[in-house]
Amino acid sequence: MMKLEEVTQALLQDYQKGRTIDTTVSDGRPTRAASEELLQKLRIILFPGFYREESYGSLEAYVSLLVAEVHFRLEAILLPLLPGQRERCEEICLGLLQDIPRIRQLLQLDLQAFLAGDPAVTTEAEIISAYPGYYAITVYRLANALHRLGTPVLPRLFSEIAHSSTGIDIHPGAQIGPSFFIDHGTGVVIGETTTIGSGVKIYQGVTLGAISTRGGQSLRGKKRHPTIEDGVTVYAGASILGGDTVIGAGAVIGGNAFVTRSVPAGTTVLGTQPTL
Amino acid sequence: MMKLEEVTQALLQDYQKGRTIDTTVSDGRPTRAASEELLQKLRIILFPGFYREESYGSLEAYVSLLVAEVHFRLEAILLPLLPGQRERCEEICLGLLQDIPRIRQLLQLDLQAFLAGDPAVTTEAEIISAYPGYYAITVYRLANALHRLGTPVLPRLFSEIAHSSTGIDIHPGAQIGPSFFIDHGTGVVIGETTTIGSGVKIYQGVTLGAISTRGGQSLRGKKRHPTIEDGVTVYAGASILGGDTVIGAGAVIGGNAFVTRSVPAGTTVLGTQPTL
Amino acid sequence: MMKLEEVTQALLQDYQKGRTIDTTVSDGRPTRAASEELLQKLRIILFPGFYREESYGSLEAYVSLLVAEVHFRLEAILLPLLPGQRERCEEICLGLLQDIPRIRQLLQLDLQAFLAGDPAVTTEAEIISAYPGYYAITVYRLANALHRLGTPVLPRLFSEIAHSSTGIDIHPGAQIGPSFFIDHGTGVVIGETTTIGSGVKIYQGVTLGAISTRGGQSLRGKKRHPTIEDGVTVYAGASILGGDTVIGAGAVIGGNAFVTRSVPAGTTVLGTQPTL
Amino acid sequence: MMKLEEVTQALLQDYQKGRTIDTTVSDGRPTRAASEELLQKLRIILFPGFYREESYGSLEAYVSLLVAEVHFRLEAILLPLLPGQRERCEEICLGLLQDIPRIRQLLQLDLQAFLAGDPAVTTEAEIISAYPGYYAITVYRLANALHRLGTPVLPRLFSEIAHSSTGIDIHPGAQIGPSFFIDHGTGVVIGETTTIGSGVKIYQGVTLGAISTRGGQSLRGKKRHPTIEDGVTVYAGASILGGDTVIGAGAVIGGNAFVTRSVPAGTTVLGTQPTL
Amino acid sequence: MMKLEEVTQALLQDYQKGRTIDTTVSDGRPTRAASEELLQKLRIILFPGFYREESYGSLEAYVSLLVAEVHFRLEAILLPLLPGQRERCEEICLGLLQDIPRIRQLLQLDLQAFLAGDPAVTTEAEIISAYPGYYAITVYRLANALHRLGTPVLPRLFSEIAHSSTGIDIHPGAQIGPSFFIDHGTGVVIGETTTIGSGVKIYQGVTLGAISTRGGQSLRGKKRHPTIEDGVTVYAGASILGGDTVIGAGAVIGGNAFVTRSVPAGTTVLGTQPTL
Amino acid sequence: MMKLEEVTQALLQDYQKGRTIDTTVSDGRPTRAASEELLQKLRIILFPGFYREESYGSLEAYVSLLVAEVHFRLEAILLPLLPGQRERCEEICLGLLQDIPRIRQLLQLDLQAFLAGDPAVTTEAEIISAYPGYYAITVYRLANALHRLGTPVLPRLFSEIAHSSTGIDIHPGAQIGPSFFIDHGTGVVIGETTTIGSGVKIYQGVTLGAISTRGGQSLRGKKRHPTIEDGVTVYAGASILGGDTVIGAGAVIGGNAFVTRSVPAGTTVLGTQPTL
Repeated sequence: MMKLEEVTQALLQDYQKGRTIDTTVSDGRPTRAASEELLQKLRIILFPGFYREESYGSLEAYVSLLVAEVHFRLEAILLPLLPGQRERCEEICLGLLQDIPRIRQLLQLDLQAFLAGDPAVTTEAEIISAYPGYYAITVYRLANALHRLGTPVLPRLFSEIAHSSTGIDIHPGAQIGPSFFIDHGTGVVIGETTTIGSGVKIYQGVTLGAISTRGGQSLRGKKRHPTIEDGVTVYAGASILGGDTVIGAGAVIGGNAFVTRSVPAGTTVLGTQPTL
Repeated sequence: MMKLEEVTQALLQDYQKGRTIDTTVSDGRPTRAASEELLQKLRIILFPGFYREESYGSLEAYVSLLVAEVHFRLEAILLPLLPGQRERCEEICLGLLQDIPRIRQLLQLDLQAFLAGDPAVTTEAEIISAYPGYYAITVYRLANALHRLGTPVLPRLFSEIAHSSTGIDIHPGAQIGPSFFIDHGTGVVIGETTTIGSGVKIYQGVTLGAISTRGGQSLRGKKRHPTIEDGVTVYAGASILGGDTVIGAGAVIGGNAFVTRSVPAGTTVLGTQPTL
Repeated sequence: MMKLEEVTQALLQDYQKGRTIDTTVSDGRPTRAASEELLQKLRIILFPGFYREESYGSLEAYVSLLVAEVHFRLEAILLPLLPGQRERCEEICLGLLQDIPRIRQLLQLDLQAFLAGDPAVTTEAEIISAYPGYYAITVYRLANALHRLGTPVLPRLFSEIAHSSTGIDIHPGAQIGPSFFIDHGTGVVIGETTTIGSGVKIYQGVTLGAISTRGGQSLRGKKRHPTIEDGVTVYAGASILGGDTVIGAGAVIGGNAFVTRSVPAGTTVLGTQPTL
Repeated sequence: MMKLEEVTQALLQDYQKGRTIDTTVSDGRPTRAASEELLQKLRIILFPGFYREESYGSLEAYVSLLVAEVHFRLEAILLPLLPGQRERCEEICLGLLQDIPRIRQLLQLDLQAFLAGDPAVTTEAEIISAYPGYYAITVYRLANALHRLGTPVLPRLFSEIAHSSTGIDIHPGAQIGPSFFIDHGTGVVIGETTTIGSGVKIYQGVTLGAISTRGGQSLRGKKRHPTIEDGVTVYAGASILGGDTVIGAGAVIGGNAFVTRSVPAGTTVLGTQPTL
Repeated sequence: MMKLEEVTQALLQDYQKGRTIDTTVSDGRPTRAASEELLQKLRIILFPGFYREESYGSLEAYVSLLVAEVHFRLEAILLPLLPGQRERCEEICLGLLQDIPRIRQLLQLDLQAFLAGDPAVTTEAEIISAYPGYYAITVYRLANALHRLGTPVLPRLFSEIAHSSTGIDIHPGAQIGPSFFIDHGTGVVIGETTTIGSGVKIYQGVTLGAISTRGGQSLRGKKRHPTIEDGVTVYAGASILGGDTVIGAGAVIGGNAFVTRSVPAGTTVLGTQPTL
Repeated sequence: MMKLEEVTQALLQDYQKGRTIDTTVSDGRPTRAASEELLQKLRIILFPGFYREESYGSLEAYVSLLVAEVHFRLEAILLPLLPGQRERCEEICLGLLQDIPRIRQLLQLDLQAFLAGDPAVTTEAEIISAYPGYYAITVYRLANALHRLGTPVLPRLFSEIAHSSTGIDIHPGAQIGPSFFIDHGTGVVIGETTTIGSGVKIYQGVTLGAISTRGGQSLRGKKRHPTIEDGVTVYAGASILGGDTVIGAGAVIGGNAFVTRSVPAGTTVLGTQPTL
């Protein structure tokens, strides 16, 4: 058993090699649990009717509490990430809370798109409580709002929470218009500089990605992901890649298609386009 | 800070816009946690040997408790969904419990299919405890049994629980024969009106879907998803779409194939079929 | 209600049919919860800086505790799996703990590959805390170390934990070289006998699989999955199948490609190769 | 095992005997857990410095949250107790919150009395965090404030929470002046109609009780418990009984004394007074 | 830090000294948590109306579940205590469940005694949910029923659970008649061979004990504690000691009295009796 | 509802009054939960056989873990209490761990005293797991060891944990010899400067206290509590007060006695001594 002591000493030496991996004190980023709790409170503010029991007392007391909780938890997450910038933290907190009505209006339109898009739906409550695509869009709309307010770290943690429970990975920096519909959704990837118009519909396994990222950090900030115009449909497993690739309004991209060049409005694309 | 009060008032007004999203009291659907607990109890009834310790006392006491728990929890979930229909709730509860031996027989056949299908398997216990495909089929068989008993809401919640932990999305309404095998499974989608025969084998990323759902609610109830006959194999990433599409017995659909027309028995299909 | 008693009796009879499914006492395999707790402790040993607060007291006390916890929990998991083989259990416990510095060195190289590969990354801490691909590789490196020590059951449980939260399924028996990068990752499958070189990069939905497994248990132990040489890139949705398939160094496999034959070094492959 | 069904039927019949004990649905009183959570929040409002970490963000956000939580939780407890009396519930909620500064002023005086009274004390923080007597007085001051606002049920539940963790039983209806000190405290009983002045000091095992309660419900509301004037000391185990019993200012009641008649100011009483 | 290893070795040696304290493996007695959970289920069976919400579904399903839970949990506790005596365990389980109606009838009479005894009571629900004396009697009646069935260990654990939350210590072997009332209760001790008649009333700090126990294990099983006849009242802090001491019907024992000889029926005793 | 904002502002002002009660940030003392967890680990080290299951793996791994846990948790509690005194913290940690064999030897003797003292005991395991007196002595022996090492705050928190669950309040500074027996125990108080010899036996409700503490902080550190010599018995409810009061070896103090002057060895005292 003396070997355990030796293991400990070996590890202590290993932590002193000065590599990136050798940090031994947390950098202040929130835990997964703290991020999930905040996200859950925000979802309740967005859809109070899907959590609030008749027995809870007045709606006003409930909403006051939710607002105070979001403010407290978000501030507690932000202060270690923005040390010394108390005012900026406060701006982000209020900014997000004031943005909720705008986000709810978008989510209402998304809800209608889901209802129109899936014949298997029976009620709107079913979409909100059980559709992974709708959950992922909800989280994206919150993460995107935080991203626009310049919030560090947290938007990405939000999108990873949605990613791990739905298999849908939407970068908070993507710009997605109203009435967006993702069906089933597992394996969907939407990159950081993607632009999506209104009324777009995509299925499971669709990638809206970059052509190659061997360029690494030098590409940071450049438009690397496609533009999808209004009313486009992208079937399961299709990949649309590249920052200059524009899928014109109303186009249909077939299942498993591999698209790296622009597609005119109204066109249907099947299979793989000729060159990488 | 007075701004928090203003945020609260702004939200209270926003909730009064009369949109679908503006419900402020829950409609009685069970929470995710309640559904998960029931599902967990049902899995223990299906596979008591994977949960029961030697030290638990008699098998009979254990099973009596499980049966009483499933009855109590399921009834508590059903009553708010079927208000005033106490007898129908009771029928569903008993119906499901009486259906367990039939479900277990199917799961035994599925277990043998997994064992035959995956050379990496070492024991059957490994399949039950660690194979996501087997977990998803287990949940489907329960959800389908509930669906056949006319249970509202709950079958869909069950399938979403499996979907979020496995990436496999099987609609409770699909009809799936014995000895079904899903390997790896992430990204598998099986739609509501799909029919699957005996001894079928599918891999990750396979879609058994509808051709287009822009038709929305008007298509509700129609056969929109394919028929897969006995002994078919569908490789990773293939999409088979459409209610009239029949994949004949013993056919093999290659990886990433995109199939929207029927395939004769015994045929092998590679890549994309010519037209959408 | 007397019917509940009948249900219980029916189940008790059903459990006596002598099928594989009819076990009624656990075989000693660890619960999911026990496996997850051990895995979590191991991740903290690998990356102490991502969990340890400044307020925790000395690093040495923290590491001593982690080492003792891993030893205790791992031993408690192993003893029922290897009954009567106390020395072998001890060898595995110490073997894993002594292997941590080697694993950490590989994870440092993987970290650099992620940083180089994704322009959207802002800090290394972000990769460790929020990238599902990096999480899956971390769990794989631990599971593989346990697999090499001859540990039964547990390596597979570890890989399923990662699979269910990331959609990335890496068999513990696969051999994966340094500087491995998986982007997004949902739907990635890497089979048991896969060999992967250094600096390989793969995207979501990629399968490194077997051509057919209807052969079942007779194929057990044979090389059934491909070899991927140094510096290969495999784009989203591609399938590379077969134990004789070798993707030569620096080759690029296009999105949704379906590859069942070897590809020379430096080549680019698009779409489906002609025959199954 | 069929006997379990018989047990169930026997119980169902037993519940139908129409006795007080035969209620089968809860009357809306809060659970112990709900009462404890509310009490805990109130203690944090009283002593924020004993719970709040430096890292929690602004004091204002913290206090806003606590106020909203107390309001929400208290309202949720009151509504089922006062059905249809929404306004009265709101009055109690606000009444209690507005009364906090008065309660805190009394608790500050009590704190000074504890510091003066116990040579073993080292810091005031020790009193607040570890002295059961101080905890019991804190809970009493809250329970009494609720009692004065006419709150049903809850004040008594609060006093029982303190009773079970400290062995000190103070009825919420007792009137207790400032600078009250209870040392050790186990076994202290202070009845409903007791009046206590300023600067009183009592030890463990002291009863301030009624002479006899065989009169039962007929005595309800009458003054049955003693009056203790300013500056009195009551040593361990003493009993002072009766609604007409007045212990004059500055009197000292010896340990285990049994007092049923008034005691003049400044007197010392030892042992048992002659008649019951 | 090497010192920690030395501490471990020192402890391992210390555990090998062969003293009673040196056991290193549990003897199968239930954990506190397991005992508390069983006790809680039993309390719900006794008073279903104090736990059951309107929304829980049918009373029958609820009671069936409770009966099955009590059976399962009690059996799991008994089997390690009575190894190899499966039938005796079953007898105790059924015996207790069949005894519930008798226990409930006693508890109904106790409830009436509390209502008659305390003018501060407002409703019977208050007694059941908030009176420590009533809680202690409830637990005693269950512990006594188990004791009469010859159950080892568990009755004493039940009485300690009540003791630690109420300060009332009633040995499961005591015999207590109907309509028993304990007011406040902290510090009450009722010894193993005590006999109490009907309609007895005792207050906090009362001891019904043995004269001296320096005799230790030689006294085991002998009547060492007093007999209290019908309708006796014992005020706070009184001690009544000795197996031959009989307090005659209707007698009143004054507060802090110390009684070691019998007291005739109808008498009132004040203070200390002359000799030990 | 705007009133909630006003309540918040009123509280924020109230916290600025500069009173002792107006601290708004914690002073670093451990939470109750942290103290309880440490205490629980220490109890397991003292009595491993009452917690350790056969299935836990080797005793050595278990003890190594416990030692590392105690070290880590104790250090984490001490560092904020002794800021900048890392070495002193380490001394206390090691000091306590090295003191465990001495403490266990005392607890073995106490165990024998309990066995000899209570005819109702059936096994020693029963004493360790269910006797509140033995629990309180165990906690005292740990708290006293910490007190002797000069540990701030924590010893008092330990004694309050025992006090609130047993009603027995033993100051960590008291000096208590071997073979100590407390029967039932509720209401026992043992003051800071008490000295107790070997083989002493006390019952519930006994106070070993100070005569008067109106002297307050000026008495701090002086001997204020009695000396109890070897083999003394103190019956229920007796009070022995004063720093000069010595109860000679073998004396017996009767129930409810009130003693403020020394008692010769071998004497029996009944009732109240004549003067205060």
